[in-house]
Amino acid sequence: MTYRPLHDSGWRGFASDNYAGVHPEVLAAIGAANGGHQPAYGQDVYTARLQEVIAEQFGDGAEVYPVFNGTGANVVALTSVLPRWGAVVTAATAHIHTDEAGAPERMTGIKLLTVATPDGKLTPELVAQEAWGWGDEHRAQPLAVSITQTTEMGTVYTPDEIRAVTEYAHARGMAVHMDGSRLWNAAASLGVPLRAITSDVGVDVLSLGGTKNGVLGAEAVVLLDPGRASGLTYLRKLTMQLASKMRFASAQLLALFDDDLGLRNAGHANAMTARLRAALEARIADGTLPGLAFTQRSPANAIFATLPIEAADRIRERVRFYDWDRARGEVRWMTAWDTTTDDVDRFVAVIAEELAR
Amino acid sequence: MTYRPLHDSGWRGFASDNYAGVHPEVLAAIGAANGGHQPAYGQDVYTARLQEVIAEQFGDGAEVYPVFNGTGANVVALTSVLPRWGAVVTAATAHIHTDEAGAPERMTGIKLLTVATPDGKLTPELVAQEAWGWGDEHRAQPLAVSITQTTEMGTVYTPDEIRAVTEYAHARGMAVHMDGSRLWNAAASLGVPLRAITSDVGVDVLSLGGTKNGVLGAEAVVLLDPGRASGLTYLRKLTMQLASKMRFASAQLLALFDDDLGLRNAGHANAMTARLRAALEARIADGTLPGLAFTQRSPANAIFATLPIEAADRIRERVRFYDWDRARGEVRWMTAWDTTTDDVDRFVAVIAEELAR
Amino acid sequence: MTYRPLHDSGWRGFASDNYAGVHPEVLAAIGAANGGHQPAYGQDVYTARLQEVIAEQFGDGAEVYPVFNGTGANVVALTSVLPRWGAVVTAATAHIHTDEAGAPERMTGIKLLTVATPDGKLTPELVAQEAWGWGDEHRAQPLAVSITQTTEMGTVYTPDEIRAVTEYAHARGMAVHMDGSRLWNAAASLGVPLRAITSDVGVDVLSLGGTKNGVLGAEAVVLLDPGRASGLTYLRKLTMQLASKMRFASAQLLALFDDDLGLRNAGHANAMTARLRAALEARIADGTLPGLAFTQRSPANAIFATLPIEAADRIRERVRFYDWDRARGEVRWMTAWDTTTDDVDRFVAVIAEELAR
Amino acid sequence: MTYRPLHDSGWRGFASDNYAGVHPEVLAAIGAANGGHQPAYGQDVYTARLQEVIAEQFGDGAEVYPVFNGTGANVVALTSVLPRWGAVVTAATAHIHTDEAGAPERMTGIKLLTVATPDGKLTPELVAQEAWGWGDEHRAQPLAVSITQTTEMGTVYTPDEIRAVTEYAHARGMAVHMDGSRLWNAAASLGVPLRAITSDVGVDVLSLGGTKNGVLGAEAVVLLDPGRASGLTYLRKLTMQLASKMRFASAQLLALFDDDLGLRNAGHANAMTARLRAALEARIADGTLPGLAFTQRSPANAIFATLPIEAADRIRERVRFYDWDRARGEVRWMTAWDTTTDDVDRFVAVIAEELAR
Repeated sequence: MTYRPLHDSGWRGFASDNYAGVHPEVLAAIGAANGGHQPAYGQDVYTARLQEVIAEQFGDGAEVYPVFNGTGANVVALTSVLPRWGAVVTAATAHIHTDEAGAPERMTGIKLLTVATPDGKLTPELVAQEAWGWGDEHRAQPLAVSITQTTEMGTVYTPDEIRAVTEYAHARGMAVHMDGSRLWNAAASLGVPLRAITSDVGVDVLSLGGTKNGVLGAEAVVLLDPGRASGLTYLRKLTMQLASKMRFASAQLLALFDDDLGLRNAGHANAMTARLRAALEARIADGTLPGLAFTQRSPANAIFATLPIEAADRIRERVRFYDWDRARGEVRWMTAWDTTTDDVDRFVAVIAEELAR
Repeated sequence: MTYRPLHDSGWRGFASDNYAGVHPEVLAAIGAANGGHQPAYGQDVYTARLQEVIAEQFGDGAEVYPVFNGTGANVVALTSVLPRWGAVVTAATAHIHTDEAGAPERMTGIKLLTVATPDGKLTPELVAQEAWGWGDEHRAQPLAVSITQTTEMGTVYTPDEIRAVTEYAHARGMAVHMDGSRLWNAAASLGVPLRAITSDVGVDVLSLGGTKNGVLGAEAVVLLDPGRASGLTYLRKLTMQLASKMRFASAQLLALFDDDLGLRNAGHANAMTARLRAALEARIADGTLPGLAFTQRSPANAIFATLPIEAADRIRERVRFYDWDRARGEVRWMTAWDTTTDDVDRFVAVIAEELAR
Repeated sequence: MTYRPLHDSGWRGFASDNYAGVHPEVLAAIGAANGGHQPAYGQDVYTARLQEVIAEQFGDGAEVYPVFNGTGANVVALTSVLPRWGAVVTAATAHIHTDEAGAPERMTGIKLLTVATPDGKLTPELVAQEAWGWGDEHRAQPLAVSITQTTEMGTVYTPDEIRAVTEYAHARGMAVHMDGSRLWNAAASLGVPLRAITSDVGVDVLSLGGTKNGVLGAEAVVLLDPGRASGLTYLRKLTMQLASKMRFASAQLLALFDDDLGLRNAGHANAMTARLRAALEARIADGTLPGLAFTQRSPANAIFATLPIEAADRIRERVRFYDWDRARGEVRWMTAWDTTTDDVDRFVAVIAEELAR
Repeated sequence: MTYRPLHDSGWRGFASDNYAGVHPEVLAAIGAANGGHQPAYGQDVYTARLQEVIAEQFGDGAEVYPVFNGTGANVVALTSVLPRWGAVVTAATAHIHTDEAGAPERMTGIKLLTVATPDGKLTPELVAQEAWGWGDEHRAQPLAVSITQTTEMGTVYTPDEIRAVTEYAHARGMAVHMDGSRLWNAAASLGVPLRAITSDVGVDVLSLGGTKNGVLGAEAVVLLDPGRASGLTYLRKLTMQLASKMRFASAQLLALFDDDLGLRNAGHANAMTARLRAALEARIADGTLPGLAFTQRSPANAIFATLPIEAADRIRERVRFYDWDRARGEVRWMTAWDTTTDDVDRFVAVIAEELAR
């Protein structure tokens, strides 16, 4: 049996980093983990090795629990640090609020307390808007803060900014969760190791992304402060996030740590965004991109911009991307581990052509 | 980067069909689906093709929703056919009751009404024990029946047996769900196509297994009677079962339908169980396996047997398998798509040696 | 056995209308419903009579489901009009968001989408901020709007304001719920019957309050458009809101409709708030209440005001009330069915004394 | 306004103890608690006094949390002693399994593991059938046992029988909950104080019934071992079981402890059952009640019997009661605090007449 692709592998765009496929090194890692039998449900040697690597990366005591997807990682992680009466303070733009179909509320009864932010980033002052009312049985108890790194707006917290939030939270008995669906992009952007923006600055539990960074499908809950959580093993299972052939999920995540593949992939995606933004800014400065403006900084792999909606639609017919806020004419352009300089240069040309019409 | 296995690929056993790895044709299918971009969350061409294949296999109107794992498939499927006040009549041995950590109850509030069975199979008479009380607000309303094919006891429903249950259920307004985690093994055992034990005999919604039959990790909810269910798209997402890079899940499932790989894999596993059982029965007849007795028939890929517990433990030290009911000295031996005749013959020898001590 | 009060029945304040006791006519109604046997769980004649009265009041087809408390009424009502993937657009000040400890999210998985308002009232423009994204599986589907009458800020929707919201919602397939915990106060304020601000202007399902208006403990879900909801009987039971001796709950609610007791009680409470506000405004005009300012209008039975926090604390030591937003120095003063003119006049004097210090 | 009954207060039957009304002493207690203001949500003096009485009755450290109904008490109590992955071993006849519409599963995600019993009573041996699998993430963790006193079959646990279960459970790290919806009937039957069958024999958390024993509507969670539970205040609120005018619930429960009203009521109900059973047994011995047989002992206020179904239906037309298991021709006859000797004697006559036809 020879398998042939059903798709046009030359088709590419700027819609999302999860439109990209699997990095060849990850496929090789899957192949290497195949053959023979291995105990199911995480009792295999790949998961054991992943646990060692995670402890090396994030510090002794860190525990890893591979799961299927980012929503699963977030729900398992948040539930593990909250009693049944807990609530989570988070940005109004947070993925857990806007893009998870109510999974946190519906699956494990987590109440979200959202705060408007200019750029997707929480500060102690912003957290304070909803961090109150402890001991009042009428109020869902704010016992965790959830931040996203890089944020859903493509911005990046510095280590000091994270530490400010974790110190504020810990001083009030709140745990800190990080949605690290694009954590590698933040690390690559800041030029620091993963631990510098997680365990070293007080994050308690992390959703570590893989799928958006070159993996077939694997994420993990990384418990950085085991004293903050309980029952992760049970919670992963009862939320339907326990893989039977876990060796393959663990092998994929291991591959990201091998020879810095995770940082290489994310760094490449960031560089392509930087190239795209620089090219566009140069043309804006030239006056050749009428109507295009940026709404956020782009330190990682996303650009948020406004442009005339008809132009956006014409561009989209040629190169796929998503509206972010159609009412405002705001779009999102993302690069991935496999975006090429040609992809970028061609996209700039398309944008320029359509804005010039 | 060259990836090397961390595990001993020669290590094999009879613990579970999910200890086995990925069939090479499935790996090839994953590879073929890689490269370039494809829309995420099921908007890709592999998922579109899978939808066509499912309709060919199960009948026009059948809809497929790939998910991550069997527990996820069961919860999504059952929830889609039940109102919030619904309950499910099922065998006391059903996976949804015994091995899913309460996921049906905890995730979407499904009440289970269990019935004791001799062999894991429900009949109209057994369903009747809990199928009553409609209209009484105090009783969780029995609005679905869930059966497993092959059952958790390794037995297989005939098409007529399934039809008897679905007719009983439909006459009372109940939907019928089939946990088909090992559906292919049943089809191979009976020598019939999948539809002969599902859509043709009245099953409304199916959890179609892949992972236990040579796939890396993919299952699907197959809605056979779309009139019975609602909101599957939303339910899959909010139960955290929506894969972003779905093209790879769909490619895996497609591979099982290509050149009958699913039936080939399951048929092989069944044949290895038959070989194992025949060899053991021959020796029992010889009187050379003192203390060994079978507790269930073995039409598919599982053997349930009792033997002296000390012997079982000695055997297990040499070849991995699970106790089923340690109090009774009952064990389960399973074969997989990759079990070899050598594996079987060596296992028979080990069993004989240890029982002879 | 003679029962003697344990409490000082002369102690009174402005903390909440649920600090007040039971109106004598309600106690008499409870007594009249006592004696002999009546079927439990709503099969009694008082509940049957209540159903007739509700249909007279709200229109043919209206259905009543007595429940225990306001949170229960809200959760049952909202759940009855939503599929499992539904979300509710509501004001950020709504009781369901701020004072129900996450019950909607935790008990039946309802996602809340909150909108900031100046006065607790939603408009079509405000609803529009979160009413979008239908058909997108990633977004909790906004399928209901919940408004509160009178609002948690003491303000009152006019019939036209309600109709604007219901028309907007219905045009988008959304149901409209009204939290009518203080519905009678709104009716008394506007001088209209209950139906003029509910069924006549398109409200689909109502939480009808009793407890805050002179009843011992009884609320009801009133389904105004039965086509919008399903399973209310089952939902009330499974949310633990089904009273066994329901005759007494129904008798209490009936009493509110007898000789307009509900309107009398609410009208009196409103009049006492009006008296309090008028007296304070007169003194503010005199310049004798330095530092006191109102933050909301007071058409019903609540006053929201800011004043120096030390003064507020001194006043509170003499007459009980609650802070609303301590950070801003905002307090809430409420009157009840049993507030007397003396209570009001004494409170004005206390406020004046402490502000004058 | 003079309230007149809508019902025939002479109508009485043997359907359920919750068909009966409110004992006059309880109504008097409600009246005494009325008048003036009292803080809401349990900050009143009646609830404070109830807390003192409960500590006197059940031992220092016992904590009381009034709630609305029995299902609410059971769900709050069980949730308070279980983590999110906990399961409850209980009798297959338990109210939490058969009559609560799935509330434990649906509201707080509790998995029930049921065991068949001959008489509604669990023993260590019966609990053992489901008390296993700790540490296995696939199995809902059996971390509590729930027993009912008196049982749903009208039988009564002796103190020693309870202690056997609690010792078995505690030795395995399981908490013990008692559904004491009819606890007073058990105490009256055994001639012991409440604590002799609760705190003294190791019960950790109790659902204390009031409604079935002469109260208008009040139950309570009584936490006997505070070390076993957490978050009861929050759990009561978020399960919608927190009464705003709690003074009246507490006053009702207090009334049951005043001058032993609870024991008097229950003792009377038990005596009426004893009278009924004795009369029937005498006639059975005479051979004048053909076809009537008892299926359970009747130490408290319920009789379970089988009789020809047509006779049962004719009797029911004259005096209301419920079928228990219509397939077997089994009925349940209950007495209440207000059942009279005349009621009993007339019922015996009706039974005799109809069986004689």
